[in-house]
Amino acid sequence: MRVEVISTVNEARADRIHHRTAIVIDVLRATSTIVAALDAGVAGIIPSETVMEARALQRPGDIMAGERFGRKIAGFELGNSPGDFNTSAYKGKRIILTTTNGTRALQKALRAEAILAGSLTNASACAAAAARYGRDIVILCAGSHDEFALEDGLCAGLLIDRLQANSTNPIDMDDFGAAMLGLYHNSANRAVQTLLASTTGKRLSKLGFGEDIERCALIDSSITVPRLQGDMLITGS
Amino acid sequence: MRVEVISTVNEARADRIHHRTAIVIDVLRATSTIVAALDAGVAGIIPSETVMEARALQRPGDIMAGERFGRKIAGFELGNSPGDFNTSAYKGKRIILTTTNGTRALQKALRAEAILAGSLTNASACAAAAARYGRDIVILCAGSHDEFALEDGLCAGLLIDRLQANSTNPIDMDDFGAAMLGLYHNSANRAVQTLLASTTGKRLSKLGFGEDIERCALIDSSITVPRLQGDMLITGS
Repeated sequence: MRVEVISTVNEARADRIHHRTAIVIDVLRATSTIVAALDAGVAGIIPSETVMEARALQRPGDIMAGERFGRKIAGFELGNSPGDFNTSAYKGKRIILTTTNGTRALQKALRAEAILAGSLTNASACAAAAARYGRDIVILCAGSHDEFALEDGLCAGLLIDRLQANSTNPIDMDDFGAAMLGLYHNSANRAVQTLLASTTGKRLSKLGFGEDIERCALIDSSITVPRLQGDMLITGS
Repeated sequence: MRVEVISTVNEARADRIHHRTAIVIDVLRATSTIVAALDAGVAGIIPSETVMEARALQRPGDIMAGERFGRKIAGFELGNSPGDFNTSAYKGKRIILTTTNGTRALQKALRAEAILAGSLTNASACAAAAARYGRDIVILCAGSHDEFALEDGLCAGLLIDRLQANSTNPIDMDDFGAAMLGLYHNSANRAVQTLLASTTGKRLSKLGFGEDIERCALIDSSITVPRLQGDMLITGS
């Protein structure tokens, strides 16, 4: 199996995604929030690139969630915090989610055979699910405003570590994947510190989202693997 | 001091280079060869992007060196091996060097205030020289055919490690720099193995350049810091 890692949404060329299983990562915070929402029993999450599109998608009963530059969107019920789903209030509801980078990355992955959402919180389950598809895998790091994001790279390395652990054959990876695996091996026991040291982590800390960062750093705290079906992320396997 | 790392030549936007000290890295093999050539006493190395331009630059007595896809260019005296300079035959000569990725990266860095060539072999000396300029630093990884190259990332991390060690204040780095520092810390004692596992390393091994790889992996084996002056790389400080 071949595993390639794309460093930012910007670098996502269609030919690197086509015919593969794509794992989209936005650790801080979209994909971590998506995992938390499904763990809380929502029916599904519909990612949307723009606020206008999000509003157009809303049907009665849907919950609007999202952020721009870390802050909740005016008029929306929820922001982009996994902690927003520490409640059963949204059970069975559809969530319309628009975020700065993560939803754009999901859109970019649309040409893949299957699209999963990966985070530190569901890494082992996500790697196992991706391997079961039996195709080559492309890991798409959302990044932040077209720049590489440390926390997404850490998660890419973690996913490759888990793919390797579960594979009988050696994993063939590209140089960027090998670098992220090295980064993960160097930081495996310091996930929170690594997230706090990242550009997005620093910004979120300043905005008062320190709890989100701690929650997003809880490696393998969930076994939920969000999978895109049509236009909605649901619990898949 | 701020240190940023650019992952490939392709990503090198002018605004990230302007007003900074640039360290250009092409571990396999251009910048390693340039260090070896200056150690062997050549007068200087003139990097050239194309074979045609290289031929046009040649004056009587100049030595033509270069490769395309790892192989020596037809009619040129030398390829792109540091081992080519295990001789005093080229002492005082000008070398015209054209390579697939490294010389392009040097051209891309032209807007910087000062341009140094970095490799694993001169990392400590190069970091110290860059710090002496007192400006922010941008590390430009040449990469290979517009893709990130593991060996260049390893060298970027090593340079940041050395910059940190010599700095009284903490280094402010971008997320990609932090990732490369993590990669270096994970691989510090396995430089040869890391180079051999890289895409370019595997290709060079197949072409019979295993000795080059071992030589390029000798961390801090030189104190020579190539610096671009006009159109020529000379021994600078």
